[in-house]
This record gives sequence, C-alpha cells and structure tokens, in this order.
Amino acid sequence: MPFAPLRGFRDYVPPEAGARSELMRRMRASARRCGFSELETPSVEPLDLYKVKSGEEIAREVWAFQDKGGREVALAPETTPSLARIYAERAKSEPLPVKWFTVQKLWRYEEPQAGRTREFSQLNFDILGVGGVEAEVETLASAALALDEAGAFGLYAFRINDRPLAEGLGRHFGASDVAAYFRTVDRYRKSSEKEFLAGLETAGIAADRAGELAALFGSVGAGVLPADLPAFFDRIEALGLEEEARAGVARIRALMRLCEPAGIADRVAFDPTVVRGLAYYTSTVFEAYAKDASLRALFGGGRYDRLIELFGGPATPACGLAIGDQTLEILLKEHGRWPEGEPALDTYVVTVSTEFLPDAIRLVRELRQAGVSADTDLLGRSMSRQLKEAARQRARRALILGPQEASRGAVVERDLATGGQREIPRDEAARPA
Amino acid sequence: MPFAPLRGFRDYVPPEAGARSELMRRMRASARRCGFSELETPSVEPLDLYKVKSGEEIAREVWAFQDKGGREVALAPETTPSLARIYAERAKSEPLPVKWFTVQKLWRYEEPQAGRTREFSQLNFDILGVGGVEAEVETLASAALALDEAGAFGLYAFRINDRPLAEGLGRHFGASDVAAYFRTVDRYRKSSEKEFLAGLETAGIAADRAGELAALFGSVGAGVLPADLPAFFDRIEALGLEEEARAGVARIRALMRLCEPAGIADRVAFDPTVVRGLAYYTSTVFEAYAKDASLRALFGGGRYDRLIELFGGPATPACGLAIGDQTLEILLKEHGRWPEGEPALDTYVVTVSTEFLPDAIRLVRELRQAGVSADTDLLGRSMSRQLKEAARQRARRALILGPQEASRGAVVERDLATGGQREIPRDEAARPA
Repeated sequence: MPFAPLRGFRDYVPPEAGARSELMRRMRASARRCGFSELETPSVEPLDLYKVKSGEEIAREVWAFQDKGGREVALAPETTPSLARIYAERAKSEPLPVKWFTVQKLWRYEEPQAGRTREFSQLNFDILGVGGVEAEVETLASAALALDEAGAFGLYAFRINDRPLAEGLGRHFGASDVAAYFRTVDRYRKSSEKEFLAGLETAGIAADRAGELAALFGSVGAGVLPADLPAFFDRIEALGLEEEARAGVARIRALMRLCEPAGIADRVAFDPTVVRGLAYYTSTVFEAYAKDASLRALFGGGRYDRLIELFGGPATPACGLAIGDQTLEILLKEHGRWPEGEPALDTYVVTVSTEFLPDAIRLVRELRQAGVSADTDLLGRSMSRQLKEAARQRARRALILGPQEASRGAVVERDLATGGQREIPRDEAARPA
Repeated sequence: MPFAPLRGFRDYVPPEAGARSELMRRMRASARRCGFSELETPSVEPLDLYKVKSGEEIAREVWAFQDKGGREVALAPETTPSLARIYAERAKSEPLPVKWFTVQKLWRYEEPQAGRTREFSQLNFDILGVGGVEAEVETLASAALALDEAGAFGLYAFRINDRPLAEGLGRHFGASDVAAYFRTVDRYRKSSEKEFLAGLETAGIAADRAGELAALFGSVGAGVLPADLPAFFDRIEALGLEEEARAGVARIRALMRLCEPAGIADRVAFDPTVVRGLAYYTSTVFEAYAKDASLRALFGGGRYDRLIELFGGPATPACGLAIGDQTLEILLKEHGRWPEGEPALDTYVVTVSTEFLPDAIRLVRELRQAGVSADTDLLGRSMSRQLKEAARQRARRALILGPQEASRGAVVERDLATGGQREIPRDEAARPA
C-alpha cells in the first residue's frame, strides 16, 4: 500500500462511521433533553490558550505547530480552554447558569494504545454559575442519560471524591508534599502495595501512618456505596480532619443525597482514591468506569471554580466532564451494544430493462421526497443482480418496473423478507411505509 | 480581550452551533435516504496524499506542518484524496457501485473572506463504479434533496458542462493552449469582455474567432435551459466539433434527459463557460449557484474517472461533489431560511421552596427518561425568577412543586403560552407530551 492513515488515526468505513454518527446523534439529543445548548469551538487555537490552564508542559502532549505566519498554534487537545475563553468574553451578557455541551473532534500527540488514538471525538458537558453540588448531580445525571441512550445502560458507574477532603485526609496521615501525595493516590489502583507505601513515604507520611492509610483505602474496595457511606463518613470524621476537609465531607454527603432523586444512586460510589491528575479541579472530582471485570476508567470530570478567572472572566463556579468516543466504543462493542451503523434501505426499485430507468429514477425521487430511503440500479444490471443488490442493502421491499404492469399503471411490490409479491397502483408506490 | 480565536476561525455559541448541528443532521438523513453510506476520514493526513492529486502547488493552500517525528502532515483541505486512498485499499472487497458520503471539518490556509473561513464543514457525495451519466444525475439529485432539506428549496440551481466538449469548443475556435483556454473560460463571468478576449488570444485564438466565441458565450446568458438545449446543441454540432467533443454533447444530452424524472429539470442549465479549476475532472463538471441577484457559486463537482488509479487502485469511474457550510449559511440567512438552533424546552420544573429540589430533580429525571426535555433551577432562586428562566428557555409549560399540591399527590401544570394552569396528579406529570 503506497498510502496509509497516520499513526493514531483511524479510517471509519461503513457501517462504522454511521454507527459513530448515530452515537453522536443520540448524545446530542440527550444533552438537549437535559437543557444543555450546543457550543462549537475551533479545532485550531493559539498554543498559549492551553498553557493558561495547563502550563508549559502541555506542549508535550498537544499537536502544536507554527502557522505560515510563524504563530504557535495547536490542534485542540480539549474543549474547556476554548469554552472558558468564550465565556470570559461573553460573561456580561450571558445569563447564568450556562449549560453548554460540545461534540467535537480533538487531538493529542500521545502514544496510541487501545482506547487512545491521536484523533478522537468527545462529548463535553459544562455548567457555569452553580456553586452547589446541584451542578455535579446535574452533570452526572446528564452523562448517565447520554451513556444510557448510547447503549451503555448498566455497564458503567461513577466514583466520586472531593479534593479538599482528599488533601485533608493526606495531611491527617502526615503528608507534607500534597502534590506527591496526590500523584501517589492517583496511581493507587495501578500500584502494588509496596509501591503505594513508598509513594506515601515520599509524600512525607511515616511508615506506620502509611500502613493505616493503606488499610483505610483497602477497606473501600471499588468504592463506598451510598448505603455504606454514613458509617464510612462517621469513621472519617472521627479521625478529626481539618475544616476544609470536613466541608468536603459535607459536600459529598449533599451530593450523594441528590443522587437518589436524580436516578443515579445505583451507579455512584464514594472513592477516596480518586483525585484526577489535572491541577485545576477545585473540589469534586469524579470518574466513570466500566462495571465489568476490566473496571477500566472511561472518563473523568469535576469542579473547576477558578478557571474562568484564569481566562480573564469574573469568578464563576463551574463543573464539567467529557465523554470520549474511543473508550465508549470499546465498552459498547465488548458488550454487544454497538449500534447498527447504516440503517437498512426501505425500497430498492428494480427495472426489468434499462428502458425503465427514467421511470425508476422518477419513482426513487418520489419515495425520497416522501421520506423513504430508496435506491435503484445505475449500471443496467440484470434483474437478478438488482435483487441481489437490494438484498445487500437489506431493503425491506423491491418495487419492480416492467412493461406489463406499466401498461396497467401498476408496479410489482415484492416483500424481500417473505418473497411474497403483489401488484399495486403506480400512484400508491411512493406512499410512505 | 487577552484571547481570541485565530483568524479565519469562528466560535459558534448557542443557538448558532445548534442550527449547524441541525443542518448536518438533515443532510446526513438526506444522504441516507438517497442510499449513501457514511465514511469518516482522518483530519490529519500525510501531506503527500494531497500532492498525488493536486501536485506540489497544493502545499500553498493547505495547513501543512511537521509532526513531532519530523513527518510532513496536513490538516485535510478536502476529503476526496482520503476517500480515494481508502477505496484503493478496499477495491478487491468492496462491491460497486460505492455510494459514500462524508460530513466533516476541513481546513484551508487561504485568505479569509465572506463564505471562506480557514475551518469549514463539508458534505461530500461520491459515487464510484458508475461510468454513465446516471451517476451525475444521482449525485445532483441527492445534492438537491440535501439542499432542499437544509432549507434552500428554490434558492439554487446547477450549471453543467463537459470538459471534452469545452476543450473541443476551444480547439474549434483555434485554442492551441488548452490550459490557458480553460483558465480564461473559468474567469469568464468575472472578467470584462476585453480581459476575456485577451485571455482567448493568449490561448492562441485569433481575434475574429475570439469574437465569435464571445458571441456564442454571450448568447448563453446564465445558462441554457433544458427547453432551449436541443436548438443550442444543434448549433454547436453544426460547428463540426471533434469526436470527443461530440461525445460530450451526447453525454450532456443524456444527462439532461434524466434530469426530468430526477425532479431537477427545473434547476439545471447547460453552461459552456463552466470548466472548474481542478485538473482532475475528466468529463462532466458542474456547480451550484444562488438563483438570487448574487448568482454566487455555492459549490462544484464533477466526474473524476482517473483518480482511484492515481492512488494505486483499479481504473474506477467516479463522480462527486461537496457542499460547504459557509456559503450555504450565507444563502439560508439571506433568505430567512436559517434553522432554529436550540429547540425550545418542553418543561421547566419550578419549586416553591428549596426543600422541593429533590422532588424537582426526580421529576426532571422522569421527564427526560420519557423523552421530554426538562430543566429545573439549580440556584435556589425565587419562583418568579424561575418562571423568567422558564420563559428564557421558551418552555412550553411549567410544572410547579409546592406543599399543598404535594400533600394531595399533585403538581400544578402551567401553560406558559396562555398562563392557564391546573392541578394534575404527580403520577401523570412525567407523561410524554
């Protein structure tokens, strides 16, 4: 092959591209049902935009390049900085709360692996202007609806934590280097106990306290379910945490209480080991994970109350998450939930001889105008080959145009599932099914 | 403002982005109704891919850059090379005809102007494997359905020509430099008569013959309508053209005959001045233009029977066109046909006091699960401010949760258009509208 797609890029041929369209369509519809409005941001932005939020090191994982004017630009690796830029500019005229969603392609220059391509699509939900956990609940409930409509019902759950609570817990056990502590906790589920304990030590936690903390985390399992949460929080609060951490406990309690009416109590757990790598989360952090044996993380999100200010806007509480297409595709395919891509054709118009092609083209046009999908042969093929093509397109029926029927102002309608056929008036052939 | 989008890029805020989504949804649905299957190609490809089709000079108008491995890559300026690459690889397994469509973002590094941004979206229709004009008619008819469904019914028409016919006409009048002749003809509608005649001279046409040709083109007006075509072609054929040009006349005749059953005879014209700049068209070329005073070109397309071979595939006849979003947006907005962006909300759930928030969240969830768009207040606002928010979201109705109704197992349903309200059982509140 002389040509191939670039590494980390995928070609989607039918019916894959159609299935992806169908997923995006369902997710857009879900977002609108949840009162989110669509935003569309540029695919290329000044590189500086990403440095504002994530610092200089972001340049390592973005596709940055110089445009022909010598300006440093980047293929968007995420949507949030553009959203913050747009909101900061419009803050004076845009009534709060803002509920915006995006469905867009994004790019990261990372090593490709399963579930991580260099080009991917993402659904983002963001709520600006709501300081209370109502925003978190709404974001999670909306994500749940989008995932359910995409076909993932029952396959995923959310793990929820709170950054100040996590930090207070670390400090309580003696962590002096919070960044190192978070890095260690973030790797908890991927580390051996030995590695984890070594990490805690690096963060300044003494060996005996590290053991206590590891025991506490170990008791959590895959997360503390809502029913077990009161007892767990009593235990946490009995430790005697600092005030900000206690406020975090209160936030999680409030959030968890609203999960029941929001219909997601069956798919949430508190998990003190979730901290999320990104520095800009200010309190709640959460991730979605596959409930199957893999327990794979699907996506994350949380509260970022400082970000709009960073982009020159007014202090604005904010909460968001992003659902990527690559991990969702793996999950749905593993569980046989990947949607049908191209829908079956409704009607294939068959011609007995090529002299009927104009009639076939006319009938196809009438069908399409009536909202029915229809196709005909453009190659002058034999009737049997046309019927094969109709079958390949999974057509529901064939309409057959021939001289005898035409002389009676009729066409033959053949049901392609049963093979049964009957003559129908030509005038009725283009009625919607 | 510290940050702004890059030159030639646009932010789409609600309801603009929603309107664009709606257009893309309609165009995708039209494409499927016409029996096209969706293809999705990468946004970044090796720069060489574009050179195969368009030569080295393409590098001037593409966003090309080096990836971190030093490879020359490009933001896709068009979809056809990727499509050709993909088909060439799959030719052995993919039954013909192939009818593929794409709806994708593309990028060109050109000077931004009205209707031309550096980032834009495009709907592509391509038919591979059909050598006859049936492919052109199907492509044009499908484009017509997509445009009509997008809201452009009655606002556009197609101009059609044939390259060998155009070349033969030029040769007949004495053109010795066909490339120069095509360049001059391509600028016909943008040139003064003097410039046009000078261009013809450069192409090798003597002054007297150039005058004859200009008179012929001048007699065409905005294009030869189907009813006038027999007489016009008689005139052309009486000139005594070379064989390949006569074959072109026959193709256009055949194509025009099928436009009537295809339902587009009211929007096609033959236009000998349309040649399209791109070198790869092999016979039919066409463009869509606005039928209003602007007569602005909207998009173009044609037959490219050599392209698949260029990409290493078997000889494969092919025909296609691409509808860009920017010119379509201008056309629809100028004529008041731009679609509503965000649909109105169905139900806003109002709480008399914050203690009803869990009930509101539960009701909103039930509504959304029933397929109804619903929202509620996350900010603990007063009832009157909640009703204002409901109005801002153009909600059809409010469902009001208060203590008296709750004690009776009921909610108040208020019609926000009429202001009329009634009590309904809570159990019935989440029924689909």
